Amino acid sequence: MNEIITLDYGSGGKKTAALIDTLIMPMLRNEALEQLGDAAVLPGAEKLVFSTDSFVVSPCFFPGGNIGKLAVCGTVNDVSVAGGEPKFLSLSYIIEEGFALDDLRKITESVADTAAKVGVLVVTGDTKVVERGKGDGIYINTAGIGFLRTPGLSPVNIREGDSVLVSGSVGDHGTAVMLARSSNLVEGSLLSDCAPLHEVTKALGTLGADLRVMRDPTRGGVATTLNEFIENAKLGIELEEGSIPVSPAVQSACDILGLDPLYCACEGRLLAVVAPEKEAEALAILKAFREDAAVIGRVSAKHPGKLTVNTKFGGARIAAKLTGAQLPRIC
Amino acid sequence: MNEIITLDYGSGGKKTAALIDTLIMPMLRNEALEQLGDAAVLPGAEKLVFSTDSFVVSPCFFPGGNIGKLAVCGTVNDVSVAGGEPKFLSLSYIIEEGFALDDLRKITESVADTAAKVGVLVVTGDTKVVERGKGDGIYINTAGIGFLRTPGLSPVNIREGDSVLVSGSVGDHGTAVMLARSSNLVEGSLLSDCAPLHEVTKALGTLGADLRVMRDPTRGGVATTLNEFIENAKLGIELEEGSIPVSPAVQSACDILGLDPLYCACEGRLLAVVAPEKEAEALAILKAFREDAAVIGRVSAKHPGKLTVNTKFGGARIAAKLTGAQLPRIC
Repeated sequence: MNEIITLDYGSGGKKTAALIDTLIMPMLRNEALEQLGDAAVLPGAEKLVFSTDSFVVSPCFFPGGNIGKLAVCGTVNDVSVAGGEPKFLSLSYIIEEGFALDDLRKITESVADTAAKVGVLVVTGDTKVVERGKGDGIYINTAGIGFLRTPGLSPVNIREGDSVLVSGSVGDHGTAVMLARSSNLVEGSLLSDCAPLHEVTKALGTLGADLRVMRDPTRGGVATTLNEFIENAKLGIELEEGSIPVSPAVQSACDILGLDPLYCACEGRLLAVVAPEKEAEALAILKAFREDAAVIGRVSAKHPGKLTVNTKFGGARIAAKLTGAQLPRIC
Repeated sequence: MNEIITLDYGSGGKKTAALIDTLIMPMLRNEALEQLGDAAVLPGAEKLVFSTDSFVVSPCFFPGGNIGKLAVCGTVNDVSVAGGEPKFLSLSYIIEEGFALDDLRKITESVADTAAKVGVLVVTGDTKVVERGKGDGIYINTAGIGFLRTPGLSPVNIREGDSVLVSGSVGDHGTAVMLARSSNLVEGSLLSDCAPLHEVTKALGTLGADLRVMRDPTRGGVATTLNEFIENAKLGIELEEGSIPVSPAVQSACDILGLDPLYCACEGRLLAVVAPEKEAEALAILKAFREDAAVIGRVSAKHPGKLTVNTKFGGARIAAKLTGAQLPRIC
């Protein structure tokens, strides 16, 4: 019993899931927690959606954003993809002694700007300071409350033949942060996709029951999120590699860093599974927000529980959940 | 503009207040946030109470509890003293690489036990891992949602002649943690008072409008919390030093460590201000939970905006808000 926590446990991949399944869930089990979405839909008269995330991204300023913007978007997006209209946020800072007050000001400005853009109110908060060497600049936790506007979203709704869509190019956030880390660049042509998804999720909600499930592919990326949709299911998902939008800058960065864009975090993109007859309508909705939205795959019974990728060269490969910590502290 | 964050900013005292007033509030201002209580009462049909706290206590196991129990009690108590019935919690871990899985198990057990005792559900969560040297074992954030059962609580209700009560001996948590830190003891005769306040706050709620305000004196202790009640007010509070319950063990520890019990954090005690004609009833309610509950002072117009302490020897002194970081990382 001398096991210790390793970085893998925070990857959002297999080890994180194992920790939740074997240690946390057995002790805390309840119906809401078992939904295991990125947010919980709470029992009660006025249906609430509740979510939390702690943000430990390194560096805390990166091309296209900073930890403050990320902390608002992350929780807003978790509430949004669960079908909620985000309304209220909590904001909690854990600051390392020696952090520049000016940086705290910039980060708080980003929190305020992003919250105002979304229309959520930061209503409660907390500030803690830890000694030098006991933190890393700043860590932020946000929790969010929303009111349920699109009920019933769940991976259990997924049917054979359903279409899988993505709302824009994948892997921008993960590669932008990794590149900033290795080169100390905070400006560059490769920008994080960090953005709020409250509007696009609302628009997709008009599809009603034909919208099966939505999720934002953060830690572990598109491949890990799609695996979560189908694990233990009698269905699998087949992706068409050639249809997955990856920007040339992200592809180059991935080649340099030895990463696979399918496992790189997005912080402003959405995966949606919709009924095949609504594929065109869903794509049109997504394209109204971003031209590079695409249908990237289909639900199939061929490989139950597996995500397979049909490569550009006519082959096929299995894309499992992220193992190991490909990208530690990406969010 | 080369100012940096120091430990003072996390003390819960003057510097923390200054940071909120000058940096955070101007950017994020809204009616709910401006309540500046430990929890926000949200606008809407079904009145919600929402609160958050991050816990960075060092050591994370201390006599009478651990960071898991503390993380549940802290947020449950903030919701409770704001008049809410705590219902749902989020739970977010920031774990340092190398932390023992067994310790994580014990901490999560405490979270589960305490939540079960209170009757709150942990419905959503998050786990992040940071590299060795970028954290300190484990930091925990909880956010809590409650339904408002005792509306209208606020320091603005305080009137001249009101009674100030405390629900039990003060300073136990702060001194227990400090002693554990200096001696590495996690067992001892001095135990943290860490406990949920959901029942005692509900019982006091029966006083209706005669209950002016409640708060748990955590960071900054009794003196800082009472100062928050009256700052910028036309009234002051006079404490009778001889009436304030301090256990002999806490008094000895404070003498050794050079601390003042009035500034030591409690994590399971309550300060309440009530109408003078309900003093006896309020005291009886508190004594049903703990025999050492006491009336410790009175609201007076003599020293507006000031907390004064009538000493055991017939003198009087002003007890200002905590300045500096008397007790860093106490919660």
